Amino acid sequence: MIKNTVEFPVRYAETDQMRFAHHSNYIIWFEFARVELMKKYGFSYAKLDDQGYMMPVLEARLNYIKAARFDEIVAVEAAILQMPRAKVQFDYKIYSEAGELLCEGYTIHTFMNQNYRAIKPPKPFLTAMRNIFD
Amino acid sequence: MIKNTVEFPVRYAETDQMRFAHHSNYIIWFEFARVELMKKYGFSYAKLDDQGYMMPVLEARLNYIKAARFDEIVAVEAAILQMPRAKVQFDYKIYSEAGELLCEGYTIHTFMNQNYRAIKPPKPFLTAMRNIFD
Amino acid sequence: MIKNTVEFPVRYAETDQMRFAHHSNYIIWFEFARVELMKKYGFSYAKLDDQGYMMPVLEARLNYIKAARFDEIVAVEAAILQMPRAKVQFDYKIYSEAGELLCEGYTIHTFMNQNYRAIKPPKPFLTAMRNIFD
Amino acid sequence: MIKNTVEFPVRYAETDQMRFAHHSNYIIWFEFARVELMKKYGFSYAKLDDQGYMMPVLEARLNYIKAARFDEIVAVEAAILQMPRAKVQFDYKIYSEAGELLCEGYTIHTFMNQNYRAIKPPKPFLTAMRNIFD
Repeated sequence: MIKNTVEFPVRYAETDQMRFAHHSNYIIWFEFARVELMKKYGFSYAKLDDQGYMMPVLEARLNYIKAARFDEIVAVEAAILQMPRAKVQFDYKIYSEAGELLCEGYTIHTFMNQNYRAIKPPKPFLTAMRNIFD
Repeated sequence: MIKNTVEFPVRYAETDQMRFAHHSNYIIWFEFARVELMKKYGFSYAKLDDQGYMMPVLEARLNYIKAARFDEIVAVEAAILQMPRAKVQFDYKIYSEAGELLCEGYTIHTFMNQNYRAIKPPKPFLTAMRNIFD
Repeated sequence: MIKNTVEFPVRYAETDQMRFAHHSNYIIWFEFARVELMKKYGFSYAKLDDQGYMMPVLEARLNYIKAARFDEIVAVEAAILQMPRAKVQFDYKIYSEAGELLCEGYTIHTFMNQNYRAIKPPKPFLTAMRNIFD
Repeated sequence: MIKNTVEFPVRYAETDQMRFAHHSNYIIWFEFARVELMKKYGFSYAKLDDQGYMMPVLEARLNYIKAARFDEIVAVEAAILQMPRAKVQFDYKIYSEAGELLCEGYTIHTFMNQNYRAIKPPKPFLTAMRNIFD
């Protein structure tokens, strides 16, 4: 398993008139946590992109448990729990500043080349993951 | 079953550097279609809000099949397929301008009052739904 | 002078906890109106992009007069008031459903090629504008 | 003068198909920097809000000099340069990870109460500002 947590305050622009962080932001926060997780293990999205790899989302699932509020510092944990194959699943948990679980969910991705075709994950990524999961 | 479709062009601001509409927008488009569906059946979100009702999201699921592109007119269909109880499920389909299915998914909601407590759906809503689903 | 107006309802996701449409959305609405204005005169952003032209923003100014509210249908007027040269200025007015002026502003753009260099506007655009402004 | 700088990476969701951070995000980043500046001097937006004060934007101006790119860490400096009166002006500068100036601009705000009426700034704010600017 690999995991990483990012922390940041909820922006005013992210609130809605329910006084919650609008639920669409959680999927953006998932992405931010995913990007930082990949970077931590040497697979910067920006570098992957330069090499012609993109990681579009195939599936997303979010369970909203409690609302995030303006200005609180949320912690978003992203993890890969199983050895990736053609598809890579990331699992997420979002915690409030007080440590309560606000949301959990996952996204499933493939790798894609610049012609927008689904391709196998880059070898260095598979090798690195195999070293961790084996 | 009740359903309704909204159509609008993909905004430039909604694109990302993959040249796709960023996947977080689909959840916003779901919401827009849901609001218009409710309005069509007499349950304007704006009026519900004035009456002290909100409809937070408990769960969201999205299956991304094909990407939406800048400036194409997407059609977003929202539907309630089953008689709502304490929870209300909305199902969605997003179609490209060419009629291809881009995304399908659902969201599950409760009603909540202004003290942020989960409450039963408003009676007029349940009555209207019963008239349709019975 | 050329101008065009687009109309659409304010999305729930666009609100903030002041119960206003968040002020960052106005700049997105300006863009939507600008894209539709250009399209109306034969210069679809999507086609310009295919031809290798982009129109980054150099400057933006917004005067916020009154807030837009959830679900109201706003009208956004975009106009080119003066013959474009190296730079193109678009002027905007946003009106509430009740016809009140909510916001006015402008953006200034250059054309840019795919190497991210500022270039002269495409000849067909200048010719079309000259035919209108002369 | 008071000022403060916040730093954060550009999110993938913030990019557009020009491969830039979409220009609407700068106004959100200004806000984030403004909120943190106010907090640093004891005027948390969240607490002001609890006390019934809001700070809507009257005017915004942005000069875009260079584009921000995905994943680079931008620094956003917010400052109050002059003693606030009925209106408060915030000035901003956004720097790239390499230290280049990407954008500068300002926003002008009033204070507003919960009935959406423009009011004088709260006394503790004026007192604190007077102590700094005198």
